[in-house]
Amino acid sequence: MIFKDDEIIVFAGDSTTDDGRMRPFAEGNNTLGMGYVRLVDSMLTVLYPENSFRIFNAGTSGDTSRDLLKRWDDEVLFLEPDWISIMIGINDIWRQMDRPQIKYRHVYPDEYRSNLEQMVTKSLPKVKGIIIMPPFFMEPCHDDWMRALTDKYHDIAKETAEKYGCIFADVQKYFDEYLKHRHSSSISWDRVHPGIIGSFIISRAFLSAIGTDRQLY
Amino acid sequence: MIFKDDEIIVFAGDSTTDDGRMRPFAEGNNTLGMGYVRLVDSMLTVLYPENSFRIFNAGTSGDTSRDLLKRWDDEVLFLEPDWISIMIGINDIWRQMDRPQIKYRHVYPDEYRSNLEQMVTKSLPKVKGIIIMPPFFMEPCHDDWMRALTDKYHDIAKETAEKYGCIFADVQKYFDEYLKHRHSSSISWDRVHPGIIGSFIISRAFLSAIGTDRQLY
Amino acid sequence: MIFKDDEIIVFAGDSTTDDGRMRPFAEGNNTLGMGYVRLVDSMLTVLYPENSFRIFNAGTSGDTSRDLLKRWDDEVLFLEPDWISIMIGINDIWRQMDRPQIKYRHVYPDEYRSNLEQMVTKSLPKVKGIIIMPPFFMEPCHDDWMRALTDKYHDIAKETAEKYGCIFADVQKYFDEYLKHRHSSSISWDRVHPGIIGSFIISRAFLSAIGTDRQLY
Amino acid sequence: MIFKDDEIIVFAGDSTTDDGRMRPFAEGNNTLGMGYVRLVDSMLTVLYPENSFRIFNAGTSGDTSRDLLKRWDDEVLFLEPDWISIMIGINDIWRQMDRPQIKYRHVYPDEYRSNLEQMVTKSLPKVKGIIIMPPFFMEPCHDDWMRALTDKYHDIAKETAEKYGCIFADVQKYFDEYLKHRHSSSISWDRVHPGIIGSFIISRAFLSAIGTDRQLY
Amino acid sequence: MIFKDDEIIVFAGDSTTDDGRMRPFAEGNNTLGMGYVRLVDSMLTVLYPENSFRIFNAGTSGDTSRDLLKRWDDEVLFLEPDWISIMIGINDIWRQMDRPQIKYRHVYPDEYRSNLEQMVTKSLPKVKGIIIMPPFFMEPCHDDWMRALTDKYHDIAKETAEKYGCIFADVQKYFDEYLKHRHSSSISWDRVHPGIIGSFIISRAFLSAIGTDRQLY
Amino acid sequence: MIFKDDEIIVFAGDSTTDDGRMRPFAEGNNTLGMGYVRLVDSMLTVLYPENSFRIFNAGTSGDTSRDLLKRWDDEVLFLEPDWISIMIGINDIWRQMDRPQIKYRHVYPDEYRSNLEQMVTKSLPKVKGIIIMPPFFMEPCHDDWMRALTDKYHDIAKETAEKYGCIFADVQKYFDEYLKHRHSSSISWDRVHPGIIGSFIISRAFLSAIGTDRQLY
Amino acid sequence: MIFKDDEIIVFAGDSTTDDGRMRPFAEGNNTLGMGYVRLVDSMLTVLYPENSFRIFNAGTSGDTSRDLLKRWDDEVLFLEPDWISIMIGINDIWRQMDRPQIKYRHVYPDEYRSNLEQMVTKSLPKVKGIIIMPPFFMEPCHDDWMRALTDKYHDIAKETAEKYGCIFADVQKYFDEYLKHRHSSSISWDRVHPGIIGSFIISRAFLSAIGTDRQLY
Amino acid sequence: MIFKDDEIIVFAGDSTTDDGRMRPFAEGNNTLGMGYVRLVDSMLTVLYPENSFRIFNAGTSGDTSRDLLKRWDDEVLFLEPDWISIMIGINDIWRQMDRPQIKYRHVYPDEYRSNLEQMVTKSLPKVKGIIIMPPFFMEPCHDDWMRALTDKYHDIAKETAEKYGCIFADVQKYFDEYLKHRHSSSISWDRVHPGIIGSFIISRAFLSAIGTDRQLY
Repeated sequence: MIFKDDEIIVFAGDSTTDDGRMRPFAEGNNTLGMGYVRLVDSMLTVLYPENSFRIFNAGTSGDTSRDLLKRWDDEVLFLEPDWISIMIGINDIWRQMDRPQIKYRHVYPDEYRSNLEQMVTKSLPKVKGIIIMPPFFMEPCHDDWMRALTDKYHDIAKETAEKYGCIFADVQKYFDEYLKHRHSSSISWDRVHPGIIGSFIISRAFLSAIGTDRQLY
Repeated sequence: MIFKDDEIIVFAGDSTTDDGRMRPFAEGNNTLGMGYVRLVDSMLTVLYPENSFRIFNAGTSGDTSRDLLKRWDDEVLFLEPDWISIMIGINDIWRQMDRPQIKYRHVYPDEYRSNLEQMVTKSLPKVKGIIIMPPFFMEPCHDDWMRALTDKYHDIAKETAEKYGCIFADVQKYFDEYLKHRHSSSISWDRVHPGIIGSFIISRAFLSAIGTDRQLY
Repeated sequence: MIFKDDEIIVFAGDSTTDDGRMRPFAEGNNTLGMGYVRLVDSMLTVLYPENSFRIFNAGTSGDTSRDLLKRWDDEVLFLEPDWISIMIGINDIWRQMDRPQIKYRHVYPDEYRSNLEQMVTKSLPKVKGIIIMPPFFMEPCHDDWMRALTDKYHDIAKETAEKYGCIFADVQKYFDEYLKHRHSSSISWDRVHPGIIGSFIISRAFLSAIGTDRQLY
Repeated sequence: MIFKDDEIIVFAGDSTTDDGRMRPFAEGNNTLGMGYVRLVDSMLTVLYPENSFRIFNAGTSGDTSRDLLKRWDDEVLFLEPDWISIMIGINDIWRQMDRPQIKYRHVYPDEYRSNLEQMVTKSLPKVKGIIIMPPFFMEPCHDDWMRALTDKYHDIAKETAEKYGCIFADVQKYFDEYLKHRHSSSISWDRVHPGIIGSFIISRAFLSAIGTDRQLY
Repeated sequence: MIFKDDEIIVFAGDSTTDDGRMRPFAEGNNTLGMGYVRLVDSMLTVLYPENSFRIFNAGTSGDTSRDLLKRWDDEVLFLEPDWISIMIGINDIWRQMDRPQIKYRHVYPDEYRSNLEQMVTKSLPKVKGIIIMPPFFMEPCHDDWMRALTDKYHDIAKETAEKYGCIFADVQKYFDEYLKHRHSSSISWDRVHPGIIGSFIISRAFLSAIGTDRQLY
Repeated sequence: MIFKDDEIIVFAGDSTTDDGRMRPFAEGNNTLGMGYVRLVDSMLTVLYPENSFRIFNAGTSGDTSRDLLKRWDDEVLFLEPDWISIMIGINDIWRQMDRPQIKYRHVYPDEYRSNLEQMVTKSLPKVKGIIIMPPFFMEPCHDDWMRALTDKYHDIAKETAEKYGCIFADVQKYFDEYLKHRHSSSISWDRVHPGIIGSFIISRAFLSAIGTDRQLY
Repeated sequence: MIFKDDEIIVFAGDSTTDDGRMRPFAEGNNTLGMGYVRLVDSMLTVLYPENSFRIFNAGTSGDTSRDLLKRWDDEVLFLEPDWISIMIGINDIWRQMDRPQIKYRHVYPDEYRSNLEQMVTKSLPKVKGIIIMPPFFMEPCHDDWMRALTDKYHDIAKETAEKYGCIFADVQKYFDEYLKHRHSSSISWDRVHPGIIGSFIISRAFLSAIGTDRQLY
Repeated sequence: MIFKDDEIIVFAGDSTTDDGRMRPFAEGNNTLGMGYVRLVDSMLTVLYPENSFRIFNAGTSGDTSRDLLKRWDDEVLFLEPDWISIMIGINDIWRQMDRPQIKYRHVYPDEYRSNLEQMVTKSLPKVKGIIIMPPFFMEPCHDDWMRALTDKYHDIAKETAEKYGCIFADVQKYFDEYLKHRHSSSISWDRVHPGIIGSFIISRAFLSAIGTDRQLY
């Protein structure tokens, strides 16, 4: 388990991270929205009640990597985290699909890589570690245009994690396992927003990645 | 153009037909919801202002073919239509995907065929004609579990139309053409609910099928 | 068909154009309100899915030509359009009828002509073309005070279009045809706001004027 | 002044009478809606404070003469009125204009005459008098289809009043005088619903007809 | 009748004048609230349709004469009225009764006289005339503390009107006549806010004072 | 102190008693509305925490003594009270003042006496005692029509209490003392509804009458 | 892991189980409220995607064991469960504390034992097994009146489980462990309603008790 | 009785004082929230109607002593009080319990003492006297972590009152007496917020402390 007592962990991301979090920033389980950040905070609290993990949700619905990079100093580093978790990129991809005519809102792979690298390199000197979670798409068919594109961004996220020694939590892998048994519509209307079941799948990836060494049951 | 002055046309279906129609039944353009039924009514009114087409929306969100059959006498034939349009089946399919554990709500192909045939045979003696639109899924990949299943129901709808001399309006074909150029997420979050753009696509199929002989522009 | 891939088209106007559009400006079909702008965008998307037309709704409810001229630079030219559609003037007329005592809100014919000419001459050097739609009133009787006045503004709009080589889309003509068969109250309470049926009538005029070369059905 | 202390006066009609009255029936100025019935009650209270006039609003929005006749016993005679005021018919006319395709909701002149006569003959033996106000349309042009039709119903109302010795309060005449000076849109969006200014015009006709013998100022 | 075509009349006052008027200032019958200002505007429109009276409601709920004086330049003279109507003072009195402990909100007779005189003297050079209506209290018993105090302010208003040649519209007199026949609770819960019946009583006083020379009926 | 542990006390009355109580009947401090019943319950709980007084609010807004008598068996005796408190009559009086024309809702003194006597005689055999509180009016001037009438009903309530050996809690006396120092508008808009300050005044009368033998401070 | 594919599991209980579940009964993750039932369903779905567990929430806020017993046939056995989970009793206890005066709503230990035994004996012949969870109170101090009483009911629940061979999931034990490290106010305002963190604690007990043999991370 | 006519009394504190008070500051019984401040104001008004006590509620929900000190000049001394009542500290304590991980929001005993002393010493030269009420916790068991901590802060408040000659109103003592007879849950869900019954308990302490020399009953 990599987190220690009194450490600050900031979760940066888009709507999957945000999920209705309180604004402006606040601390405490009930400020964290209804998604994976709150599930993770709740489980860590139950598993390690003798420790205080100070968890912040810095997700903002609709963010692309470009948007997140713009607010990185003011909303992520500003919180003086010990650890940062990043899950970003699906809106970089999705806007190319659902709003093809609005090109200035598209963030293509090269810019994505650059945005992610800037977040990492700005932060590394100030934190104990970074967890990168790739964008995921709940679609098993790799021929789907959007899954194919998501695979590209997934690889960029993974390569970036490896290049800078970050922890990589492969969320897509856990979703792919689930999708061998059930259709995506059993979790999500749009294959992007995870709902509570999908948030547990993300939590699996995250809790494994940080070396959680106590079990719930 | 098959419809004549003062004829009654009833659109039976599920949420794609319903789309927020007024309850209880009422007549008039503003009672028809925001979907393809209202688009079709509006366009026919503009194109043939000297005729009165009495159009009713008998769609009910969430209906499977089993549900629609149950209310067929009371909510469709009750209206004494000259023409009936049927678009049903996607919920027969979808529930097998998104609620796999709730088996009593699944309607499998054999029952679908039987339900549809009962609607048709009950109605044929009383109406001038029936238009059948198959269920559609906005997914071009035929390997997708749900598209593959939709293809089966599509064929059943088509076979039923042919067997009983109904008009078949192939909605799926028009969606497939569109999806060669744009990703499904440009129209719909869940690949089922069409939004206004998808409703125009359905209208294309419907207006062609009924032999509309005047153009908008 | 005069529009090309990736071109920006801005619809300027009053409440008939606005019809509940999103504020502040945004792009995408669901930001365009519920009137003719959304219908036109939807139909063009369905007819030409391989092209991206970037359509903006710059209508503002209640605007006279004087109001529209004031915001022309900031809200129309600011969007760097390739094409501009203008439908303005009914509030210039209506205020003389429904608020006779509030004279400073009346815009008389001479000022209307001047306002419209300024919009056109400011824009011509920067765009590929301008479509002018005259104000219309859903009243067939030319003796009606308001119809008689609308006819004057209609002529000014037409003369302006001709003088500057703009495309003129004669909306009133399409409404007059409809009103030969049905009373105005079948579309509109106030003979000004078109509802969805009236919006289709406007779309007829517009789609014809721009040379739409594919049919829906 | 025909009304005496403690007499009950019931106003029967459609939305112009109703205008948001309280449901179920109640007595007292604040239960009478925001239309001419409340204005009349208020002015009579101010002019004759030593008398108690028990005024009921029995208007129901949307009513045709057919609808009003159906509820005549239960909602008008049930109140045991000394005087009845009737203003009905505009929806008999309007539905022929705004919903031409829904013919079963049209009430043609012969039925209108019959409905009105039945209301009168049922009531005459039980009351001290009946005031009939004809349907009116705020349109000065008699060529307008709806005004022309309203003129027919107006004449039927007048003939019925004369035939049975009822008081006839010619509301249309007062509106026509007003419309010599101002356009209908200065009072009403749809030329049917009067707003507060139109309600004063109706009150003029009514207060004159009942022989009001004190002035406000 | 003192008002002429195209003249501006501003009604200054407190909640009895305000009565829900639109904010910020606007012109037109529907912006005038639901009190005597709208009644007066409606009746003048009906009686003199060939004239345009531009009526503004500048009442503000809760205002004492001290508050009204503060906003006199910005909200009354700013409108460049031809005529001003002032009804102010009841809150000067009422706060002494209902909030005896909050003395800084009390406005005593001397200050009231001074405030009213300042409003008048500032305005007289710029307008054609001023109508003063005194504060009124719907209580016939002169021994009541609040009625006794209102009588004092009434006299001050009257003396001010006489001193400066203003028109004095004695609202209290009309209420006193009414209260000979009915208890105050038949109009008002608190003996201050007039409701629609009380608003007609105020209108009586006002319309008489301005020499209205046409009758409603 | 007349109440003992586990006894049931029911407060019957009109809006002054009701004051927003929960419906249907429930027990517990938070079900008792915001008026004197809750204040009395709260103070008794604080003063006698070792005892359980089961207090019910059976007030209904708008009730006259006629209305209360009708529901006496079903809503008062039904609760099997040990003690009953009755405060009724103000609506018997008030309707004569504020709705003079609606005579069937007036309850005159003879009927009031009869109604009250029936409540008492029906109940006496089943309870340990009855507390009667007279209707009160927050107006010191006995010449006021409504105060004069309230005095009559007050005397009837007092006589009834004496005749049947009930406890009489003279609420009016406490209000009169208060009104020597402050105007009624410092407590109440309409001189009937007491607000929280008036509710304390009622509580004074009630707590004195039941012989409360512990002090708050 | 005791549950098998396609088995029905019903969770009976009070507000801790209910937690905002959909009404009337429905199946599917999003119908299960926001408490431990949804957490358990979500985790089982993620852990065993190849199985369908049909989970129903039959909790009702405010229920005592007496209330639950009354609806046992209609709302629990009616669902034909394979497994039943029961967590009931805290309201039996709480009402003795927070509403001491309302004795008929108190359920004392003997009745609690009897109620619970009846639920178990009625059900055992029809199900594969029963899980009993005792009522819990988030208070470590056994001297607290309510904790002391909860201990009694806990023992009754445990004895009943042992007597009838039910699975006993000792929720209180998991809460007591947590409360060694943190004050109850870190989870719950009232020490009864668990919030999401407390719901995870209940889930720990439940998932352990049913022999969950796969781990989340 | 220490308060005199026309004196200003300001109640400073947290949510127990605030209890929904109006914002921004206003005077008058109905601006004081629903807690003990309004009860005290109401009782003093009833008991001493010939005096005007100008009571302000300066409580702010959530305030610790640190927060209150920050706004002391602007929101307490700004009001120029003759008397100040201070009840602060429970949030200093509670945050250590319910948000153990958010340490910067904890206010430990030394800082509490310092904060309180600064409020007192800043104010003493400007006022006639200060009433200090200690923070209280509705828990009789002194072993409870939060009660034990509250006892410490209670002692600090008491010592501060003694050191500076302030009046000390021992609220906790009154609650402890009540809790000998009833469980805390009969007043409060969280043992902190008092509800109306707890507000009467606070009022007992306060009214005793200020030497109230008239009784309610």
